[in-house]
Amino acid sequence: MASDRNLTFYHAVPSRSGTVHWMLQELGIAFDTKLLDLQGGAGQTPDYLALNPLGKVPTIVHGDTVVTEAAAICCYLADAFPEAGLAPALDDPIRGEYLRWLFFSPSTIEPAFIDRVRQYVAQDSSQNSYRDWDTLLAMLLDVVGKAEPWLLGQKFTTVDVVMGATIRFGCMFGILPKDPVFEAYIARIDARPAYQRAQEIDAPHFAAAMAGRS
Amino acid sequence: MASDRNLTFYHAVPSRSGTVHWMLQELGIAFDTKLLDLQGGAGQTPDYLALNPLGKVPTIVHGDTVVTEAAAICCYLADAFPEAGLAPALDDPIRGEYLRWLFFSPSTIEPAFIDRVRQYVAQDSSQNSYRDWDTLLAMLLDVVGKAEPWLLGQKFTTVDVVMGATIRFGCMFGILPKDPVFEAYIARIDARPAYQRAQEIDAPHFAAAMAGRS
Ligand SMILES: N[C@@H](CCC(=O)N[C@@H](CS)C(=O)NCC(=O)O)C(=O)O
Ligand SMILES: N[C@@H](CCC(=O)N[C@@H](CS)C(=O)NCC(=O)O)C(=O)O
Repeated sequence: MASDRNLTFYHAVPSRSGTVHWMLQELGIAFDTKLLDLQGGAGQTPDYLALNPLGKVPTIVHGDTVVTEAAAICCYLADAFPEAGLAPALDDPIRGEYLRWLFFSPSTIEPAFIDRVRQYVAQDSSQNSYRDWDTLLAMLLDVVGKAEPWLLGQKFTTVDVVMGATIRFGCMFGILPKDPVFEAYIARIDARPAYQRAQEIDAPHFAAAMAGRS
Repeated sequence: MASDRNLTFYHAVPSRSGTVHWMLQELGIAFDTKLLDLQGGAGQTPDYLALNPLGKVPTIVHGDTVVTEAAAICCYLADAFPEAGLAPALDDPIRGEYLRWLFFSPSTIEPAFIDRVRQYVAQDSSQNSYRDWDTLLAMLLDVVGKAEPWLLGQKFTTVDVVMGATIRFGCMFGILPKDPVFEAYIARIDARPAYQRAQEIDAPHFAAAMAGRS
């Protein structure tokens, strides 16, 4: 059983490993957190590079299985702990749509955010996996606007963790506009006890990181 | 059963929907191909945009399920048609590593390729999901060099389709160096009957596309 194996979570605050922390809280499972001081070089030790050769967070080790990439980790955990009901079963007709959005978030939304932050505009929009910013934004407003209340319908799923964290990040950093559609969806996320628990646990580390920067 | 539902594959030649075509040939399942003339605007019709609002290929429709994103489609199909043995089962300890590489390819390798093509070098490598080009390249050489003969070991899996197609693309377009490690792995891919079948079926469309461009 998945719960028989030790689960170690390599985390840094603030960073996108926050997405996995939220996921772990949604699952309500036991895990050990290893907090890495990335500025202090903890991502570049030989032991850590053996797990994640790019020296990035998040990484999880579950028994003997090493998983990297925030969306892959969330996808993996949802299937490994099906009791939490965050993933449709393999034979559920909604499974394809579920995977679609889990991949869409890091492969198409994130590259669009990166270009937006860099103020890069491709001359030929067929070069971008996201087409162009306006088309992507219209699509996100449509998809999030149809959430009732979650992206796949009535049931909260891993898609809300992965795409929800990305949309939340986009709004927080002013990459996405403060549209009521996004704000209402983010408010629903913020009201989740698991989201709040992750935030509370990370709060002292966040404060320490901010103090260290100033 | 998954095979009871009609499968429609929206394809363009040449494009990354070639990855899904190869995957479909590996699965050996029945499907209808709808070939889109993207230059002619076939990706921008209202009917197609209803399936894929960004007007991109690939898309599949399986029964009522719409799936986009090449890696998501491959991940979905491997689980929907488990007889082909391209995906470890959910309780197989290798499942986490399997998902890791399925996500790594579009979320980390592809953004690195894009920056490389654009000759963009970040001042602060902690901004890149792939760290920096040299670190990513060393990692890819290590991972592909350890393939025996496939990325997850003896068994060919969806990871070889998704990451294999990306590595093949990188070498073909001179983004990756012509290293013997990559070349040996690509030669193993090229020797696969399913890969050859996909290439043969697409050959006339490829020739037509090239003639149209010249
Ligand atoms: N993230 C998407 C990207 C899809 C994509 O960029 N497709 C390209 C073909 S390689 C496309 O449709 N280009 C034609 C166009 O934009 O008109 C995926 O992996 O499927
Ligand atoms: N594609 C990876 C990206 C991971 C990543 O870029 N992590 C950042 C944190 S947001 C990191 O570790 N940065 C610190 C560093 O590079 O030293 C994922 O989704 O997990």
